[in-house]
Amino acid sequence: MNVTFLGTGAGMPSKNRNVTSILLDLRQELNEFWMFDCGEASQHQILHTTVSPRKINKIFITHLHGDHIFGLPGFLSSRAFQAGREPVFIYGPKGIREFVETSLEISGTRLSYSIYFKELEEGLIFEDSKFKVYCKKLDHGITSYGFRMEEKDLPGRLLVDRLKKDNILPGPVYQQIKENDFVTLPSGEEIDTSPYIDKPRKGRVIVLFGDTRYNEEHIAFAQNATLLIHEATFSKEQGQLARDYFHSTTIQAAHLAKEARVKRLIITHISARFHKSESNQLLQEAQSVFTNTQIANDLDEFLIKTTEVHQGNQKD
Amino acid sequence: MNVTFLGTGAGMPSKNRNVTSILLDLRQELNEFWMFDCGEASQHQILHTTVSPRKINKIFITHLHGDHIFGLPGFLSSRAFQAGREPVFIYGPKGIREFVETSLEISGTRLSYSIYFKELEEGLIFEDSKFKVYCKKLDHGITSYGFRMEEKDLPGRLLVDRLKKDNILPGPVYQQIKENDFVTLPSGEEIDTSPYIDKPRKGRVIVLFGDTRYNEEHIAFAQNATLLIHEATFSKEQGQLARDYFHSTTIQAAHLAKEARVKRLIITHISARFHKSESNQLLQEAQSVFTNTQIANDLDEFLIKTTEVHQGNQKD
Repeated sequence: MNVTFLGTGAGMPSKNRNVTSILLDLRQELNEFWMFDCGEASQHQILHTTVSPRKINKIFITHLHGDHIFGLPGFLSSRAFQAGREPVFIYGPKGIREFVETSLEISGTRLSYSIYFKELEEGLIFEDSKFKVYCKKLDHGITSYGFRMEEKDLPGRLLVDRLKKDNILPGPVYQQIKENDFVTLPSGEEIDTSPYIDKPRKGRVIVLFGDTRYNEEHIAFAQNATLLIHEATFSKEQGQLARDYFHSTTIQAAHLAKEARVKRLIITHISARFHKSESNQLLQEAQSVFTNTQIANDLDEFLIKTTEVHQGNQKD
Repeated sequence: MNVTFLGTGAGMPSKNRNVTSILLDLRQELNEFWMFDCGEASQHQILHTTVSPRKINKIFITHLHGDHIFGLPGFLSSRAFQAGREPVFIYGPKGIREFVETSLEISGTRLSYSIYFKELEEGLIFEDSKFKVYCKKLDHGITSYGFRMEEKDLPGRLLVDRLKKDNILPGPVYQQIKENDFVTLPSGEEIDTSPYIDKPRKGRVIVLFGDTRYNEEHIAFAQNATLLIHEATFSKEQGQLARDYFHSTTIQAAHLAKEARVKRLIITHISARFHKSESNQLLQEAQSVFTNTQIANDLDEFLIKTTEVHQGNQKD
């Protein structure tokens, strides 16, 4: 599982940071990508990655501000050009459907695939065999959501030492033991596989916030996340600006990470007022509160290992 | 007067060519820029120029395909961020107003300036003291327009040799002579200035076509242009593709330039199927029909001198 930041800026593009879009690489888990927000020129940023737009089949929109949605019509249109045939599911606030449909209709865009819209309400919005996704309203003047992706428990590892101790030697049978409750060994003996498989591993939890003010009510939603992706539009000293414009500062993002006891924090959505050389200072501000913080730059890719998972990572 | 090509690709962006947008630099004439089409990420391209978005106050849209309009909401929004206060006039096919208004409304975008829309019909669409702009429907499956910008006659040059011969020597009086019908000389003598001013110079004529098939009916509209900007989505051999998709080939654009007796042709809107290294071949195809052809690359800037003007350049 990887997270790629296509755009890490706020409000409008600059030479250094495009407006917001984030890709969650679930090729290993589901053979697909999920996109979070789609600011203008997100499709241009994808040209600088190895991502195939065809494989992006879920798009989650945190809120309807232009810097988070104006790339959507173009992305959807180019995805059709690039032989996209699989449907796309778009989850976003009320209004996202009208924006997309109006844009495609007026531009005479014909897609080669279907789009299904789900206009959001708080709670569980998606579940399959591997993931659950929840959303929660944040504090941003207009409706803005955070998303919490919970990976379901992963199968326990094979206890190879115990197998060898019982004279069950490596071979295709190991794969059978992983996948079945009972297995007939090459010797003809039938065994119960459960003693040879460790307890299930907790899945990863990614929490990604749309634009928002800091608010204590968000702590529970981010609780014990493996990774929290949070906006930090403003620096430490700009608390009043952050409040006035419904955004967060570096240290507010870090405080949330600390209070929610997450494993790792990545800050993004950095105001264009900051020069590239100031990124390190913003990062240090956040790290002064929550050590395991990183700052995202455009096209940065972060690996999220299963071993990073917090002990008690489920939401409730 | 300069023309800057922000994007020169067709259909969707590639690493080499962004989708269409063209700027006409009228800073010398009107202290403003005019924009023609606004594909996605046109505002990103502007970041690589010295153009101030505040100075772009007329936007002409040739047609509503996404690669020509999806950058408009983001451009308009960022123009407000960048202290744009002057109104913007948008000229485009019916539907442009709904697209812009829906996008801005759903995204909660508040502008610091007014937008005035003019949904196009063929004929004269704009006139001020320096320019007339006409539009004409082309042949593109959906309504697509060409624009013809006619610069009005420019004042004749001062005939300095004649002034000197008549003992009227250089000084502030030369400026007065340029600007007035009668002037009192330092000697006290009053003169009629007309013998000292050359006949008015013809203004420049820029003709810019939206996406279109080649069609003989377009010749008259481009007649005697100083500069014709024409799409060449396809190469010489791809006439059938061009016909099927309502586009033109390199040599079709060049034939039109030749038949319309324009002074110069710039081809643009090059399909992403062509590699960067093939540009020269496309150019040579066009030049085999019309010598004074150039091919536009992203961020190319072309100067259009008054001395380039064709003899009989008015459309009449």
